[in-house]
Amino acid sequence: VKNIPVLSGYPEWLPEQRIVEQRILDTIRRKFELSGFTSIETRSVERLDVLLQKGQTNREVYVLRRLHAGEEEENKNLGLVYDLTVPFSRYVGQFRGQLTFPFKRYQMQKVWRGERPQEGRYREFCQADADVVAEGALPLSFDMEMGALLHDVLSSLPIPPVRILINNRKVLDGACRALDVEDVPRVLRNLDKLDKLGEGAVRRMLLDDAGLRESQTGTLLELARIRTPDASFADRVRALGLAHPLLDAGIAELTRVMDSLAATGSVTADLHIARGFDYYTGTVYEGVMTGHEAAGAVCAGGRYDDLIGSGFVTLPGVGISIGVSRILGRLFAQNALTADRRCPTCVLVALAAEAARHDVEAVARALRTRGISTEVHHEPGKYDRQIRYAERKGIPYVWFTDGNQVRDIRSGVQAAADPATWMPPEEDLVPQVRRGR
Amino acid sequence: VKNIPVLSGYPEWLPEQRIVEQRILDTIRRKFELSGFTSIETRSVERLDVLLQKGQTNREVYVLRRLHAGEEEENKNLGLVYDLTVPFSRYVGQFRGQLTFPFKRYQMQKVWRGERPQEGRYREFCQADADVVAEGALPLSFDMEMGALLHDVLSSLPIPPVRILINNRKVLDGACRALDVEDVPRVLRNLDKLDKLGEGAVRRMLLDDAGLRESQTGTLLELARIRTPDASFADRVRALGLAHPLLDAGIAELTRVMDSLAATGSVTADLHIARGFDYYTGTVYEGVMTGHEAAGAVCAGGRYDDLIGSGFVTLPGVGISIGVSRILGRLFAQNALTADRRCPTCVLVALAAEAARHDVEAVARALRTRGISTEVHHEPGKYDRQIRYAERKGIPYVWFTDGNQVRDIRSGVQAAADPATWMPPEEDLVPQVRRGR
Repeated sequence: VKNIPVLSGYPEWLPEQRIVEQRILDTIRRKFELSGFTSIETRSVERLDVLLQKGQTNREVYVLRRLHAGEEEENKNLGLVYDLTVPFSRYVGQFRGQLTFPFKRYQMQKVWRGERPQEGRYREFCQADADVVAEGALPLSFDMEMGALLHDVLSSLPIPPVRILINNRKVLDGACRALDVEDVPRVLRNLDKLDKLGEGAVRRMLLDDAGLRESQTGTLLELARIRTPDASFADRVRALGLAHPLLDAGIAELTRVMDSLAATGSVTADLHIARGFDYYTGTVYEGVMTGHEAAGAVCAGGRYDDLIGSGFVTLPGVGISIGVSRILGRLFAQNALTADRRCPTCVLVALAAEAARHDVEAVARALRTRGISTEVHHEPGKYDRQIRYAERKGIPYVWFTDGNQVRDIRSGVQAAADPATWMPPEEDLVPQVRRGR
Repeated sequence: VKNIPVLSGYPEWLPEQRIVEQRILDTIRRKFELSGFTSIETRSVERLDVLLQKGQTNREVYVLRRLHAGEEEENKNLGLVYDLTVPFSRYVGQFRGQLTFPFKRYQMQKVWRGERPQEGRYREFCQADADVVAEGALPLSFDMEMGALLHDVLSSLPIPPVRILINNRKVLDGACRALDVEDVPRVLRNLDKLDKLGEGAVRRMLLDDAGLRESQTGTLLELARIRTPDASFADRVRALGLAHPLLDAGIAELTRVMDSLAATGSVTADLHIARGFDYYTGTVYEGVMTGHEAAGAVCAGGRYDDLIGSGFVTLPGVGISIGVSRILGRLFAQNALTADRRCPTCVLVALAAEAARHDVEAVARALRTRGISTEVHHEPGKYDRQIRYAERKGIPYVWFTDGNQVRDIRSGVQAAADPATWMPPEEDLVPQVRRGR
């Protein structure tokens, strides 16, 4: 490739950044599995009618065609997935008879959106999702469990604290109905932009775009401004004097969720949160990194009672999604997260001469057998050059087979060692992830 | 989704199968990292001119377009990657100044090919690749190292033994030149199909399709029939009486590689192997599972001296690729590989009544803190029902908080236990992968 094409919106990490990403994915996986969530992977493509159901027609979907597709070939209309919830719901419908419910699963995969690339918005990115889906009723205790899991996972990552904002669609929906608002989805989308566009802009959108009256707009903005660290939001909503059974149901659910999670100190009931996907029907979550609010939501999720259906039955679900690429893109751009090596290697075995290769390979094998990542220098030559190779890659130790000496090349300290027993300090065994600034 | 679309060629695994896949990917990753290979991920899309370079025009590439692409939008001509070597070579060219050479990396990602789906041929599948690329010369010792790594990785997986077939393009190429063959790539492609189509069919292809003379065809088929477990192939090639410097170079290289790997007992010098990709220039590898030869190659690789270029320099590389999806698809179809659970959960904590939830959650937390995957039953109810839920998911233990008793539900043995100290036997801590038949 003489002329290398750079494509914006398709992030790729350097090896030392990928080590950070691996550590984060490993930690998320570990936490999900400790809570009994099982891994699945869904295919990257779905039929367009699946992708565009539930009014997702405004999504920027990538459509596929085969390069050598013949004229006669049936147009299958396949597109790349833009989230993991829609393919998951199709998977549950398809394999329902072979799954055990409530089905708790996680997925860590790429998704694609043909949006205009900008900071924090990618065309290909990695999400880590966990969801639970039930046959019949899905107890509200799962809304609490998913919120607690989100807090547990995020607080175990080497990233700034994440504040989790929680709302319930029934609160917004019920308030709209109490106010006789007609186009509820449009109003919810407008309110959801309060943080991004500010109150003046949202007020104008509600009046001009959604066609609300001044009084409706005023009440909805008052509702959307409510933010409390506990269940005290409920009194402030009731003070607005709105009456609708759906509103009451939403207040009751959100109260129970906030009562259960307030002790974490990481959650806020924030009544403007609606989330962009139309499939949410109850609890909604969203998270922002402290000090990085401009990066937007780094996690999100919610309850969807009507997304998954097969025949006459629908399966309710609730889930969370962590925007791994968005978190990393932000922190990498600010040099706020790095690894102390650009490879997994702990020991480089120096190769003095081609004749020594047999001994050198034996040392490498002995170290690897005991879990120590080891490279053999690729060609014989001066030790100085081989040590410089280790330095450039961040490899902490160089092993010399003549006399079995191992040198910590950071300190220069060298000592005799036996390849059958020597172990590095634990912090040198694998690369360490470090938070900057 | 009322009418669930089934797409052939896009394999998806059930949870208990995904656990097997995870174990296999974890093992491959562990082996790659122990040898100092570092992880990268490349984007799933490349420009078509990158995908179709080096004569790869016969590949079935999926082309992307945005659903809402405007008329005025520049056609970027992006396609999904069909292997990991081409995007890797683009990555190395693009980030060359930020990498340390020889650059040893691995990737475990999805690739896409728009081929007709059939057993073992998928349209979306997972590959695990390891490659090393040098600036300047890449010593032949890496061809041996990659062969040894391939053997090491494959023999550590819970799959049937894999026989690794090795050849060198220079042997085939040099023999063709010694015989004054004109369209060498076509002849190599024909010879590569010897196992699949048989000698009669290949003979006809060489005569009719490639236009060879009877004597050329006879000599090439004699060459292609040579299979030896060591470097003794060389004498048999020399007995054919062909003379060309490239042939001599190929024999010398393959001799050194076979001398280095013969002791594994897993390799065969097999002179018909050419591999389909035109970018290979030296050593080529291919592997088949014993007893599953009909499944075709489950791993492959080789040396490519001219694929990666930037300006006037080309960077030589050598790599291996393991067809994870093809291996799993074959073994799953024959029920030859399973996990003993369909979730990671080791302990289900029973929930007698809603009032007990606080105690139950405390036990779950204590167990998780010590690395034991734990679920809380989602709703209070009869213990019998809760035990049946555990049975269906393969969870081995149920914990009762009244009196802190833990029951092995396979044996029915129940005993008092402390959530702060109790540990299951090691084989119960995580799901076990079992080989059938």
